[in-house]
Amino acid sequence: MPVQLKVPENLSGIRGVRLGFSEAAIKKPGRKDLLVIELAAGTRVAGVFTQNAFAAAPVQVCRERLAAGTPIRGLLVNAGNANAATGSQGIADAKATTAAAARAIGVSPEAVLPFSTGVIGQKLPVDRMTAAMPAAVSALRADGWLDAAHTIMTTDTVPKGANRRVATSQGEVTVTGIAKGVGMIEPHMATMLAFIGTDARLTDDATREALRRAVAQSFNCVTVDSDTSTNDSCVLFATAQVGVRDVGVTDPDFEAILGAVTEVCIELAQAVVRDGEGATKFISVEVSGARDEAEARQVAYSIANSPLVKTAMFAGDANWGRIVMAIGKAGVTGLDPGRVRVALDDVVLIERGEPHPDYREERGAAIVAKPEFAIRADLGRGIASGHVWTCDFSYDYVKINAEYRT
Amino acid sequence: MPVQLKVPENLSGIRGVRLGFSEAAIKKPGRKDLLVIELAAGTRVAGVFTQNAFAAAPVQVCRERLAAGTPIRGLLVNAGNANAATGSQGIADAKATTAAAARAIGVSPEAVLPFSTGVIGQKLPVDRMTAAMPAAVSALRADGWLDAAHTIMTTDTVPKGANRRVATSQGEVTVTGIAKGVGMIEPHMATMLAFIGTDARLTDDATREALRRAVAQSFNCVTVDSDTSTNDSCVLFATAQVGVRDVGVTDPDFEAILGAVTEVCIELAQAVVRDGEGATKFISVEVSGARDEAEARQVAYSIANSPLVKTAMFAGDANWGRIVMAIGKAGVTGLDPGRVRVALDDVVLIERGEPHPDYREERGAAIVAKPEFAIRADLGRGIASGHVWTCDFSYDYVKINAEYRT
Repeated sequence: MPVQLKVPENLSGIRGVRLGFSEAAIKKPGRKDLLVIELAAGTRVAGVFTQNAFAAAPVQVCRERLAAGTPIRGLLVNAGNANAATGSQGIADAKATTAAAARAIGVSPEAVLPFSTGVIGQKLPVDRMTAAMPAAVSALRADGWLDAAHTIMTTDTVPKGANRRVATSQGEVTVTGIAKGVGMIEPHMATMLAFIGTDARLTDDATREALRRAVAQSFNCVTVDSDTSTNDSCVLFATAQVGVRDVGVTDPDFEAILGAVTEVCIELAQAVVRDGEGATKFISVEVSGARDEAEARQVAYSIANSPLVKTAMFAGDANWGRIVMAIGKAGVTGLDPGRVRVALDDVVLIERGEPHPDYREERGAAIVAKPEFAIRADLGRGIASGHVWTCDFSYDYVKINAEYRT
Repeated sequence: MPVQLKVPENLSGIRGVRLGFSEAAIKKPGRKDLLVIELAAGTRVAGVFTQNAFAAAPVQVCRERLAAGTPIRGLLVNAGNANAATGSQGIADAKATTAAAARAIGVSPEAVLPFSTGVIGQKLPVDRMTAAMPAAVSALRADGWLDAAHTIMTTDTVPKGANRRVATSQGEVTVTGIAKGVGMIEPHMATMLAFIGTDARLTDDATREALRRAVAQSFNCVTVDSDTSTNDSCVLFATAQVGVRDVGVTDPDFEAILGAVTEVCIELAQAVVRDGEGATKFISVEVSGARDEAEARQVAYSIANSPLVKTAMFAGDANWGRIVMAIGKAGVTGLDPGRVRVALDDVVLIERGEPHPDYREERGAAIVAKPEFAIRADLGRGIASGHVWTCDFSYDYVKINAEYRT
């Protein structure tokens, strides 16, 4: 069961966006696994993608089309097959299926971006996907976001979505996003699949900038298991349906829209961790007193990815010995243990590198017994800070990953 | 049960070394937990220690005494308490207990080095340890190596020891070593506790150089869980009992002695992994075709530490998708997936970045069903190679670490 995560009951539509799905029997028959998202003419699209050197075929095609400045009119997403480690055939398959989607919605063949998630190293079933395209397109509707979130799930236990409304000088803007992903999660640029739409009139530049900044505060702050997927993709599309004036990065409305986009991304990124494979706790690792943000994040990841910290948290054991071990192994040159402070929520465990005299085990145990809490470390060597959201490491993590074929 | 690991039936003594143990009730009563190793006058001692910034008090004292060139005449080792994150009191306690050991064996107070393993952040029971010292010293004997290996165990399931004999121009040299450690294992310089003795007449320089080179090929090639302990220590002592001519690094006998020391270290390092927490498989990750050794090891560690690779191996699933994911996320700039080759033992799975046409799942499954096998990756961009020994990730890893208080 996901940790403190409410499944969205409905998600607001975005003017200029319609979503439709169908069953293509990609991994197995009998489930929705093909999603088409149609975008109005004039939509501005930005994407960030995995840093894994084995970037999947759909990621390569997305990068190529976005770099070429092709006007994007649709997204094609499939679950059940990652189309990764599939070589030139994989590229051809991604192009063939997006061309089929483009035909079905009546746009040029390069105007659709491909996204895949599921098993690595198997050929995409192009024929079954092409055959299922007309059904997906005839099902297109504006209020299809929650169904879309269902369609892209793999080992996710719940669909993940979020939305916000924000007032701007040109009228109210809506931001809605969906995401999938529960394992192979330590994104570097983006996590698994996330699609965020807004009806704001963001320029191309502003769309890219809003995505870059929102992802830095959200998807790039989570880790489930330190593993980076080959297929991570996060896309922001702005359909430009609100107002008449384009909103660039210096426009007074930009910050408000960015704020809403960032909040949606944070909610989705946290949802990925809350539904992390086998997760029983949601843990915010907050590091302060660092020389720079990179150093703070380095230490936060060292704590968040330590199997010994994660198993202790699963056991409800406020094992600060493992936390200081993880701080110490993070590779911070010249770190002075005698200046380090460690707290669980607001209870200080370690002060100046040693157990705090007032600390009692019961107080730490009470905090880690909760489903959600913070591990806070201050390095005492600067003013920069950084955070990472993660989950614990349970029997079920092993069970899920020993039984599921990536 | 450790993977393919034979418990040593006996371990050769080293002339000039006597070992004795007693019960000090350090963590709990009723077990041997205090070890004294007495070294003959003239013994040359070298040590390598954890790179964790929270280096434990005994590590700090060892570094200080070795740097000062103090002649070392004994080692004091305790299990049950790591004397880590204990501040200045911890340093004082390490000095007080080694002084007690020094008194008992009749050497100067700084001539004994301290080593501790066990719970982090608790004060050392100096009184109980001091009281147990005479019993340990009166039990000193040359053939105490196997008992010593028992004494330093914590969550180890078996004692770990190895020995070799090698002919030199001055006569036969013996090398005997013991080690402990099964978790918090990704050493950077040395792993947990390991003590290797030889009767060779190595000079101080040659002792340091032999240890440095042997550790690079052994303890620095293993990972159980990517976590680096605060107490890692590895010591080589050469009692200079064989021959009359000092053996420096340019002496014709040096390579032979180094070879024996390296073999003992490799056997001990592999024993740590074979007895890794929850381990059911011993996996050698071998990376070739890299630009340099550091790059090869970086990729090997990325594979060896991937929770998704480790759980797949536990499940006996030849999941090469996760292996290529782990190669891709390793952070090798400019890695070309189209030149990467992946094999399990001698069965090629991936050639030029894509599944090999002759590969069949049954062949991969047959290999990963074995208790011991190799994951081999060639990056196709150079001639350097590197390897890491690791184990899989099982339910028992979670169980052991959710229940044990570090």
